[in-house]
Amino acid sequence: MSNKVPKTVSIITIGDELLIGQTIDTNSAWMAQELNKAGFSINRRVAIGDSWDDIWNCLQEEEEKNDIVLITGGLGPTSDDITKPLLSNYFGGKLIVDDAAKENVIEIFTKKLNRPLIERNLKQAEVPDVCTVIQNKRGTAPGMWFEKDNKIFVSMPGVPFEMKGMMADYVIPALTKKFEVSPVEHRTLLTAGIGESFLAELLNDFEASLINGIKLAYLPNYGMVRLRLTATQTLENKNEIDFYFDQLKKTVKDHLVIDRDISLQEAIAETLKSEGKTLAIAESCTGGYISHLFTLLPGSSSFFLGSVVSYSNNLKSGLLGVPETTLNGFGAVSIETVNKMAEGIREKTGADYGLATSGIMGPTGETPGKPVGFVCVGFSSKEKTENTTFQFRFDRKRNIELTAVHALNFLRKSIG
Amino acid sequence: MSNKVPKTVSIITIGDELLIGQTIDTNSAWMAQELNKAGFSINRRVAIGDSWDDIWNCLQEEEEKNDIVLITGGLGPTSDDITKPLLSNYFGGKLIVDDAAKENVIEIFTKKLNRPLIERNLKQAEVPDVCTVIQNKRGTAPGMWFEKDNKIFVSMPGVPFEMKGMMADYVIPALTKKFEVSPVEHRTLLTAGIGESFLAELLNDFEASLINGIKLAYLPNYGMVRLRLTATQTLENKNEIDFYFDQLKKTVKDHLVIDRDISLQEAIAETLKSEGKTLAIAESCTGGYISHLFTLLPGSSSFFLGSVVSYSNNLKSGLLGVPETTLNGFGAVSIETVNKMAEGIREKTGADYGLATSGIMGPTGETPGKPVGFVCVGFSSKEKTENTTFQFRFDRKRNIELTAVHALNFLRKSIG
Repeated sequence: MSNKVPKTVSIITIGDELLIGQTIDTNSAWMAQELNKAGFSINRRVAIGDSWDDIWNCLQEEEEKNDIVLITGGLGPTSDDITKPLLSNYFGGKLIVDDAAKENVIEIFTKKLNRPLIERNLKQAEVPDVCTVIQNKRGTAPGMWFEKDNKIFVSMPGVPFEMKGMMADYVIPALTKKFEVSPVEHRTLLTAGIGESFLAELLNDFEASLINGIKLAYLPNYGMVRLRLTATQTLENKNEIDFYFDQLKKTVKDHLVIDRDISLQEAIAETLKSEGKTLAIAESCTGGYISHLFTLLPGSSSFFLGSVVSYSNNLKSGLLGVPETTLNGFGAVSIETVNKMAEGIREKTGADYGLATSGIMGPTGETPGKPVGFVCVGFSSKEKTENTTFQFRFDRKRNIELTAVHALNFLRKSIG
Repeated sequence: MSNKVPKTVSIITIGDELLIGQTIDTNSAWMAQELNKAGFSINRRVAIGDSWDDIWNCLQEEEEKNDIVLITGGLGPTSDDITKPLLSNYFGGKLIVDDAAKENVIEIFTKKLNRPLIERNLKQAEVPDVCTVIQNKRGTAPGMWFEKDNKIFVSMPGVPFEMKGMMADYVIPALTKKFEVSPVEHRTLLTAGIGESFLAELLNDFEASLINGIKLAYLPNYGMVRLRLTATQTLENKNEIDFYFDQLKKTVKDHLVIDRDISLQEAIAETLKSEGKTLAIAESCTGGYISHLFTLLPGSSSFFLGSVVSYSNNLKSGLLGVPETTLNGFGAVSIETVNKMAEGIREKTGADYGLATSGIMGPTGETPGKPVGFVCVGFSSKEKTENTTFQFRFDRKRNIELTAVHALNFLRKSIG
């Protein structure tokens, strides 16, 4: 098979919970990222309910359109799961017990969960006799690999942790081998402080100069825009992408935040670690969210000392040492208060840098001159204390997320 | 039109960013929830890229299968957006400038953003002359409502905040009026401490007793299982669902957490507010995530005083007053330390209740006898200090989320 034409993938997610909106599908995005890196192209993603006819018809439709059909969900032990008997039928097989899968179910129940095994659990070990079984190292439901007319179908559990294990350990390596694809190349950078349409104006000539096989995409998110160059598999010389990426960086240099596909907090973490500096945060309006973003990163304890979420004024004065006169004179949401908060958290923790947020996230809480969405951000180091303000106009959740992103960008510039 | 047969909806999301996994689709879940509440049934959700043929074919396919096709995304001002000309073509119209949409674009740029208006921005005001324009109160791209052979097509921006405004203000009311549907009824409860298959065993007889028109669904999430009863539109007497919901509650009573469709933190917030009690948290391994869950709730400042994210031992002793002897003698991850953390945060903040977490979230950090995933949770009130431990076996992010959910459930029981 040629390695020039990317093999197309369709992802089918099965489950009524997706159609009533009880579950947000994070699986598809992760799968798409990993498959894309490996050189596969995702054509479509379809979500359908636990209905025999819908699943059957969807399999037929996606089979027509694609080389590979990846299916997640619908493999649980309860009665609303019909995927396994359907797959067995669809590929002309019958359900049999897989010994290794059965061992796995027994081991998980008796050793890990310490729970009695019931008949229903053993059903998990049944698989169609026409598939290659993919053992599940992280749960009880095995995965299934089917081949039909040189097309591949893979069924995996909907639990993200289990699906990810199977994809990484088995599915992606097996697909790569089977279809002999070469990875596509991406180059990504992050910009801030410029809207999508202004970027597009700025990049008019650059876009026109792109050769066939290199594509530019705009990915706006939280007031920042990520720009991604992709060299498709039809491009002979993959190194050409670096020439264009250099051009792109030069063109947007005044707005460039990071020239790699990492998050703001990862970029800051790299800087802090390489310089041996530490950070502590005083969060009022962001309520712990910025700390959460840092502590999600493995190894964050090497630079992140901790934070005070000072939701009440008492904590601002008591734990952070913001003077009552500042709080009473200027209010909790003021540049004077965030200055003191940033200095306070730095001094109380002994960190090199202090970051502080205070604002009105809504839907209520506005005061004269300080509408919902008004935010103050402060920064403190041994050398300087500085601050900035923002005005956001969204709902509570989005205001919190936007505040976090913009506070991180302010921090990045302050320590840069 | 009959109000007995639920009108079916297909949701199409357009954008290359969805197929490469750069964006997690949260729109579909929100739309599904709102449409479901309003009595519409979601049949399928399809995500496709910014390709003319793919969009065109997808419109044709979904039109065949459904009464209503809702489209999000692909309306931005940059060159990778082709949805608008395509829709104009598909419905046999041509693009014209909509005056109200133009006014809106000008107002947003000159008054709100304080930025010069460029030609590309005005393109946002163009719409096919065969649609009803849905004005965008939260952004520049207008929505479009098309009718064809008694089927409805609606195109909306992909920005969640903008889409939600249009759905709530215009689309759902207009669809409800057009199709004369009556809402479906749901009853939801949350269980903890029992696996999906054991619940299914327990509910065998209950499920068998359900009449036609009432369905039970299992929605497992983070070690808890949500159970949802749905009375479909074919059920004559909607009150019958309450009889079955009572039965369901009785059957699972030993595992029942909440008998409504709210989150654990919302349930705790209700209890605290109704009793006039306050909470403060000392978060080590959860790194701010529990505080974030509480501060996402509007009005949380009435019961949540704040927290200390004590990521370093210095903060555990300095800000929380955990004795050095406790930290050195038992370690940062120990029941002795979380006891002192819970007591410390309560005393330092004057809160009625203190909650504390400390654990090893991975991928590294294990010590003898304390593997990755080992977590201690402490609770302190005037009357008592108590603690519990957990062992999770997942990746860092999921371990943090699981710790948060189980710490919240421990808190709920401790204050109950």
